[in-house]
Amino acid sequence: MTKIAIVYHSGYGHTAVIADAVAAGAKAAGAQVHLARLESASQDFTPALEAVSGADAVIFGAPTYMGDVSAPLRAFFEASSKIWMGQGWKDKLAAGFTNGLTFGGNKDHTLTSMWVLAMQHGMLWTGPGVPLGNMNGNTSAAPEAANRIGSALGVIAQSDNAAPDVTPPAGDREFARLLGERVAKLAAKLAG
Amino acid sequence: MTKIAIVYHSGYGHTAVIADAVAAGAKAAGAQVHLARLESASQDFTPALEAVSGADAVIFGAPTYMGDVSAPLRAFFEASSKIWMGQGWKDKLAAGFTNGLTFGGNKDHTLTSMWVLAMQHGMLWTGPGVPLGNMNGNTSAAPEAANRIGSALGVIAQSDNAAPDVTPPAGDREFARLLGERVAKLAAKLAG
Amino acid sequence: MTKIAIVYHSGYGHTAVIADAVAAGAKAAGAQVHLARLESASQDFTPALEAVSGADAVIFGAPTYMGDVSAPLRAFFEASSKIWMGQGWKDKLAAGFTNGLTFGGNKDHTLTSMWVLAMQHGMLWTGPGVPLGNMNGNTSAAPEAANRIGSALGVIAQSDNAAPDVTPPAGDREFARLLGERVAKLAAKLAG
Amino acid sequence: MTKIAIVYHSGYGHTAVIADAVAAGAKAAGAQVHLARLESASQDFTPALEAVSGADAVIFGAPTYMGDVSAPLRAFFEASSKIWMGQGWKDKLAAGFTNGLTFGGNKDHTLTSMWVLAMQHGMLWTGPGVPLGNMNGNTSAAPEAANRIGSALGVIAQSDNAAPDVTPPAGDREFARLLGERVAKLAAKLAG
Repeated sequence: MTKIAIVYHSGYGHTAVIADAVAAGAKAAGAQVHLARLESASQDFTPALEAVSGADAVIFGAPTYMGDVSAPLRAFFEASSKIWMGQGWKDKLAAGFTNGLTFGGNKDHTLTSMWVLAMQHGMLWTGPGVPLGNMNGNTSAAPEAANRIGSALGVIAQSDNAAPDVTPPAGDREFARLLGERVAKLAAKLAG
Repeated sequence: MTKIAIVYHSGYGHTAVIADAVAAGAKAAGAQVHLARLESASQDFTPALEAVSGADAVIFGAPTYMGDVSAPLRAFFEASSKIWMGQGWKDKLAAGFTNGLTFGGNKDHTLTSMWVLAMQHGMLWTGPGVPLGNMNGNTSAAPEAANRIGSALGVIAQSDNAAPDVTPPAGDREFARLLGERVAKLAAKLAG
Repeated sequence: MTKIAIVYHSGYGHTAVIADAVAAGAKAAGAQVHLARLESASQDFTPALEAVSGADAVIFGAPTYMGDVSAPLRAFFEASSKIWMGQGWKDKLAAGFTNGLTFGGNKDHTLTSMWVLAMQHGMLWTGPGVPLGNMNGNTSAAPEAANRIGSALGVIAQSDNAAPDVTPPAGDREFARLLGERVAKLAAKLAG
Repeated sequence: MTKIAIVYHSGYGHTAVIADAVAAGAKAAGAQVHLARLESASQDFTPALEAVSGADAVIFGAPTYMGDVSAPLRAFFEASSKIWMGQGWKDKLAAGFTNGLTFGGNKDHTLTSMWVLAMQHGMLWTGPGVPLGNMNGNTSAAPEAANRIGSALGVIAQSDNAAPDVTPPAGDREFARLLGERVAKLAAKLAG
């Protein structure tokens, strides 16, 4: 059975909603999912590191705070340096997701930071591979459309200033589900 | 009088609308503006290069095609290599704008490409410095809001699949006007 | 048999040396290799586009000119937009290499541009996965070391101001060979 | 008198050597310098935040750990979000420096992360504006050359696996001094 670790931080619960949707997509595609939620930049990262070490694929998630991954994920990345020395995560599949208050906010930079980390570890990277939500029409960014923003590097979700049970909208959760499904399928191929 | 060169490419006229709005903002702030529109990757770039050489500041513009600056601007950047050898554009102020069909589409990468070029030339870079259009409310991305997308690296505009007289919307043109105004003011300070 | 397309531009032959080394590595690992060398930004890209369409994996290569991919590769990327509309390259494996006169010169930006293009097409990305050439010692960047620069996103080669038969050095060619080998092996896994 | 804040983290003292050289360059050019060294991701950032608020320009510094700014600087960036809400750092000048064991290691990504933060705050960005150390010769990267690596986005230093009193080499310290001098001169112009 393909094993997927989802290592993420969520400040107010919106990114956790996306993490859950990613997990649901991966499970529905037959993977066993380990959700490792980070709480702070100074916590013990051993369990989360071990979750990745034991998995075929890893999906990183964090809110975009001031244009990059939040500090807990950054600190987790640093804590992976000993594993990096021995290239212990080599050839695993990696992907990422992020969430923020705007459509922009430099979320691509956040996803690029995740990719850079994955490359240092010798992992492969996949984006969501979901066509643009408004590709064929005139209306931009309907909230029910998967990939309403036009994101290729990973999943970008946008949450209004409201509770996680109402935002991010259905389209973003569907986008996240599709990423989980894709990673599960590709990881199975690579493991096979 | 502060001189500003706007070097841009526009495939279907939408990016040109943004260029014109940038120019209007710069002129209203007292600058003399030279608009240099590129037509192809194989054209003679001498006039556009000279426009930058004679200016205090330069604002680059291009549609985002497949996630980066369009080929004519890329070829213009390459053509600046002889000037780069002598650091002929050193200490000028630079900024950028882009436009595309979606809110995402890796437009930050386009603006980053412009910034990298500016840094190689020893120029300074300024973003638009405009607060997020939806910062204080729940409604994301109203078309009449300047910086409705949340762009900090440069101006990002989004055009629907329609003619340039109806799209990009008023908010994006206002955002562009504010960039032109900002560059004119900062260039005057640096020249002073 | 796994098919790999290598689409690259080389201004003075140094990048071509790297392309040949990548090809040799891929062939030795059992792949059939199609080398498509681009000549200009205004050429007909149909044969190169078809080479990618017919392959399991693609490796992009270009010299870094003024901090990004050279104009012919940029124009090739643009020419792939019709294939992108139908996501015709989805699920292929992608990788990249670049070369320049310095160790820096923003070559990571060049490789990031290739990655962004690959993500828009729904492809997977792999770096070289080669440990740093100077990881365990005090001496930085011996020319005979593979990955002497410390590059994770793709292959970075550095050429002195001399002919392609003497530079880039052996370490860079070995680094390129290892990338070709890696892409061939991973593409076979994904195809299997 | 122009005031410059240098906010940096240094794990083993090598980045601190660069910070000191930047400070020396800025002081020699007539600026008053406030060095704020960060110690951890969970510290109180109030003094460092106030140092930036009281300065005309800020220079960020951090070692590159796993391809990005180290966690203390990342956490400092996050802690600036309240100031960002009111755009309290708008129009200040910003620049950056980093250090690592290799010439590569994705140090450009580290500098890009600093630039993204600066842009969100509405600041201007300047690189070092120093010509490449090996531009005219065949020998790459002599340790006594300023900008021996070819860095345009900020100062990149490389330290061997030795104590900070012997590495990074003289060329990197000179490169850092030139950045400090440049920021001091440009900040004086902008303040004038």
